[in-house]
Amino acid sequence: MKTKNNFPRLSLIGAGPGDPELITVKALKALAQADVVLYDALANEVLLDYAPSKAKRIFVGKRKGKHSLTQDEINTLIVQTALQYGHVVRLKGGDPFVFGRGKEEADYAALFNIPYEYIPGISSAVSVPGLQGIPVTHRGSSESFWVLTGNTKKGTLSKDVELAAQTNATAVILMGTSKLKDIAKVYQKHNKGDVPVAVIYNGSQFSEAVAIGKIDTIAETAQQLNNKGPGIIVIGEVVKHHPDYAVLLREFGQFLN
Amino acid sequence: MKTKNNFPRLSLIGAGPGDPELITVKALKALAQADVVLYDALANEVLLDYAPSKAKRIFVGKRKGKHSLTQDEINTLIVQTALQYGHVVRLKGGDPFVFGRGKEEADYAALFNIPYEYIPGISSAVSVPGLQGIPVTHRGSSESFWVLTGNTKKGTLSKDVELAAQTNATAVILMGTSKLKDIAKVYQKHNKGDVPVAVIYNGSQFSEAVAIGKIDTIAETAQQLNNKGPGIIVIGEVVKHHPDYAVLLREFGQFLN
Repeated sequence: MKTKNNFPRLSLIGAGPGDPELITVKALKALAQADVVLYDALANEVLLDYAPSKAKRIFVGKRKGKHSLTQDEINTLIVQTALQYGHVVRLKGGDPFVFGRGKEEADYAALFNIPYEYIPGISSAVSVPGLQGIPVTHRGSSESFWVLTGNTKKGTLSKDVELAAQTNATAVILMGTSKLKDIAKVYQKHNKGDVPVAVIYNGSQFSEAVAIGKIDTIAETAQQLNNKGPGIIVIGEVVKHHPDYAVLLREFGQFLN
Repeated sequence: MKTKNNFPRLSLIGAGPGDPELITVKALKALAQADVVLYDALANEVLLDYAPSKAKRIFVGKRKGKHSLTQDEINTLIVQTALQYGHVVRLKGGDPFVFGRGKEEADYAALFNIPYEYIPGISSAVSVPGLQGIPVTHRGSSESFWVLTGNTKKGTLSKDVELAAQTNATAVILMGTSKLKDIAKVYQKHNKGDVPVAVIYNGSQFSEAVAIGKIDTIAETAQQLNNKGPGIIVIGEVVKHHPDYAVLLREFGQFLN
């Protein structure tokens, strides 16, 4: 039976970094009106409870090295389910426009006259460092922050990392933990072996873990955690604000400086 | 009368870009337990209704060119009110750690053994462009985004703008509209006069207004809006995703290219 809400439309929703309370009021309202929820691996599945019980729930997540669905298949599924059921909520971890390919999905839907709304989410780029006590900007430490990906279209390290290594901006690298050694090499090439680094796994979740070090040592320190979860790399002076940094400095002063 | 919640503590809360529904569930829960709310000019005042009616509400906002309170005075007020009343909620526009000086406030409170919690907010840096249909990252247009401020400690344009002009990163400049001409000059120096630019005022609010153009023309276009509200500058290929861009291109093709 058609309901008044049942016209084809797409809500691109950011679910935030993992903690299910870090979703917006607006996003929960949209979820409550979903006919279909297409959700990622990164989004916390507890959030699915906010959708009506009769709403279809379809996992379309991409996991590292194993694509459940290609982006083209997701685009097609959005259109098919919108035309068949009505309101499609596309629930993504973080924010849909921060390496989320959200605009591609919106543009594809637009080809079928399916309108979209964008409901921003808490990006892990700012919040995950912040929850570890690392502000991405701080007077005296950093006037700007640069958000990059370790996972470009070509699978290579983004050239932007090379440029970021030459600035004093805080660099926040998403989806880059598997390339941590390569990233460190880029910084070392520019004599930045002493710059502080944090690698944060499973940010904002109970399984959160962090490695603190400097460019020259971080790959080894992070490896010791042996964490396979999604990780965020933060490079720059602001990492000194992490409470562990002072401890490391006191105990291994020679090592860190 | 002391209550069980009445011990001195600080919640640094991001209120998001302006739309009061773009606050997180976690932030609302903290607000509901506030004994004192210290709030900025940027935060939507409707949110104050979520605090208990008996909670003190104190405006500590800084408006352009007119500081209601200095940062030192705010730091002191946080400590005084926390010691006197208990739970202080510091409600800031956007996210507390994106040019919000939140960590300075947390560090000052820590000197008095007042613990803090950080509750991230939707930063206008990503959400305000996104709500205008401009994704800060997009395959084929931009692999990264760089968030800068036009308003540094010294009052001068950040040197990072000079570096950003030499990259293909999307540049998002907060608090920079009064320096729009200076910013354009920096890009022109690097032969980037044709790079698309958007200036968005009062993002996510009813009074939202946008100017779309390119580096060579944006200062004039933005001036015609005559908008004195807080504005965000977005520079880079992703601005071509704004729906007005295709219209401008069609009607003023010569002008824009």
